[in-house]
Amino acid sequence: MNSAEFKNFEEAGQAVLKFLYQKFGFNLWMITRTEGDDWIVLQSEDNGYNVQPGQVFRWADSFCSHMVQGKAPRIAPRSEDIPLYVNAPIAKQVEIKAYIGQPLTKEDGSLFGTLCAIDPKPQSEAITKEAGLIDLLGQMLSYILQGELREVEQIRQRERFKEEALNDSLTGLFNRRAWDNLIGLEEERCKRYGHPTAILMIDLNNLKTVNDSLGHTAGDELIQKAATALKGCVRSNDIVARLGGDEFAILSIENNQVNAENLVNRVLQVFAEANISAAIGLAMRNPLNGLLKALQEADEKMYAHKKKIKS
Amino acid sequence: MNSAEFKNFEEAGQAVLKFLYQKFGFNLWMITRTEGDDWIVLQSEDNGYNVQPGQVFRWADSFCSHMVQGKAPRIAPRSEDIPLYVNAPIAKQVEIKAYIGQPLTKEDGSLFGTLCAIDPKPQSEAITKEAGLIDLLGQMLSYILQGELREVEQIRQRERFKEEALNDSLTGLFNRRAWDNLIGLEEERCKRYGHPTAILMIDLNNLKTVNDSLGHTAGDELIQKAATALKGCVRSNDIVARLGGDEFAILSIENNQVNAENLVNRVLQVFAEANISAAIGLAMRNPLNGLLKALQEADEKMYAHKKKIKS
Repeated sequence: MNSAEFKNFEEAGQAVLKFLYQKFGFNLWMITRTEGDDWIVLQSEDNGYNVQPGQVFRWADSFCSHMVQGKAPRIAPRSEDIPLYVNAPIAKQVEIKAYIGQPLTKEDGSLFGTLCAIDPKPQSEAITKEAGLIDLLGQMLSYILQGELREVEQIRQRERFKEEALNDSLTGLFNRRAWDNLIGLEEERCKRYGHPTAILMIDLNNLKTVNDSLGHTAGDELIQKAATALKGCVRSNDIVARLGGDEFAILSIENNQVNAENLVNRVLQVFAEANISAAIGLAMRNPLNGLLKALQEADEKMYAHKKKIKS
Repeated sequence: MNSAEFKNFEEAGQAVLKFLYQKFGFNLWMITRTEGDDWIVLQSEDNGYNVQPGQVFRWADSFCSHMVQGKAPRIAPRSEDIPLYVNAPIAKQVEIKAYIGQPLTKEDGSLFGTLCAIDPKPQSEAITKEAGLIDLLGQMLSYILQGELREVEQIRQRERFKEEALNDSLTGLFNRRAWDNLIGLEEERCKRYGHPTAILMIDLNNLKTVNDSLGHTAGDELIQKAATALKGCVRSNDIVARLGGDEFAILSIENNQVNAENLVNRVLQVFAEANISAAIGLAMRNPLNGLLKALQEADEKMYAHKKKIKS
């Protein structure tokens, strides 16, 4: 019935950005996600700045970081008149003379990101009269996002349920094939929503020694003990897999660097208590490179850790 | 973070109506639902026409019925210039000189209702430039509605699951207490979304005779046979309850008059095949009166039917 019905948050966002560009101009309109120090571009309607989805800036450098705190206006047709905007580091990197920003919020009221626009030339004061429209569109986008994130959670539960058919028989953890499938599905979500995600690669140190000296039953018991310990350390949404032999992996979803480092320490502590020696490598997904690159990086760090333990 | 965050389709709709009234004027803004011949007002931002949620007009009388078919414009600052609008019966009932309308669609692309506005005075031609905004808001509302209807379906499943603890032990149908609870929950949804809903009251005719002549076991078998027949006639979402003794009831959800009449005929036919004699009363929920009134009406019709059978 309508020419451009949308099917998800991404399409709704794109329709809003396009509408706002056609109505108000401004060379760049974006939907962004803030995550710790990162400011991730999820979608853009770009007509001059050359900013693409997946690009990452420093949140502290942005105009938006001041706007969401209420310290500087949501609509600044002449951003040069606002000291906080003039002094923002991003204004040194690109030419900005006009700014519009609107917070996007999660269901609990916390900040998800922003709907925002910049232009290299000052804009007409008339734009300040459009605050109501931009606020309404920001709220509707927030609400659409919230509904979609709830649905994602249910889809995720169903995916996990399906992949459980591929459980590793010894430990009940996901096996490598399930892990590969789930990584692919989560990568799509990370791209769409800018979720931060951590990967831990874990390699037991003494499996061969145990197998050789105490027999394979003792080796199997070591593997099971490690699996139980890992499951006890993670949140219910996280994915724990046994990739093979003495190799385990954790995908810690919607989790930032600080929490991921805490997770590593927790695993090391629980392993120490259970008398399990292991090397661990941690890497965060970088929005530019994706989960596969993080997987590789976590693997390299795990081997570096293993070398360090042995030396 | 925002002053007016909304928590559901109703609040989102109210925010949109309020925004549109403040921006464009027009004495009446509405979100409506079309259902058969009925045109139901779900929400209104009224500044002069005195139209309230729950009011029902004839769909065929409306401007919107022409608009959704693409036969007349979505924005008519002077609706007197449009013959289809001038001749629409509603223009004889209330003073309309300007009109805006936008379809709201369900997930399958079919019509749910409209976002629309009227004013007793002609409006400025400039409003036609706002087609993009009104289209965008209509689409976002449609999308929010679609998500909410999906969630309602899941909530409904959970409610049913919970009420199943109150099953009638002889038939496995919902008992009277579960029926009362579910009626209350569905009434809320009917109000919010304008769902059409039918109530069937069913009373077996010969239970006493069977009990007296063939014994209570035969009577119980008759009740179970009737219950099985009823369950076989309805859709999975419909509620079938045994209210007590030889009395059954069906709440047929999101179902219109024509389909409800077909359902009555189906029940009568299946009962006839199973050699069960029963009186049936059917009533549709009227948006002005609600389900409790429909329940009463269905009961009266059932007794009228019973009288007719006996005479």
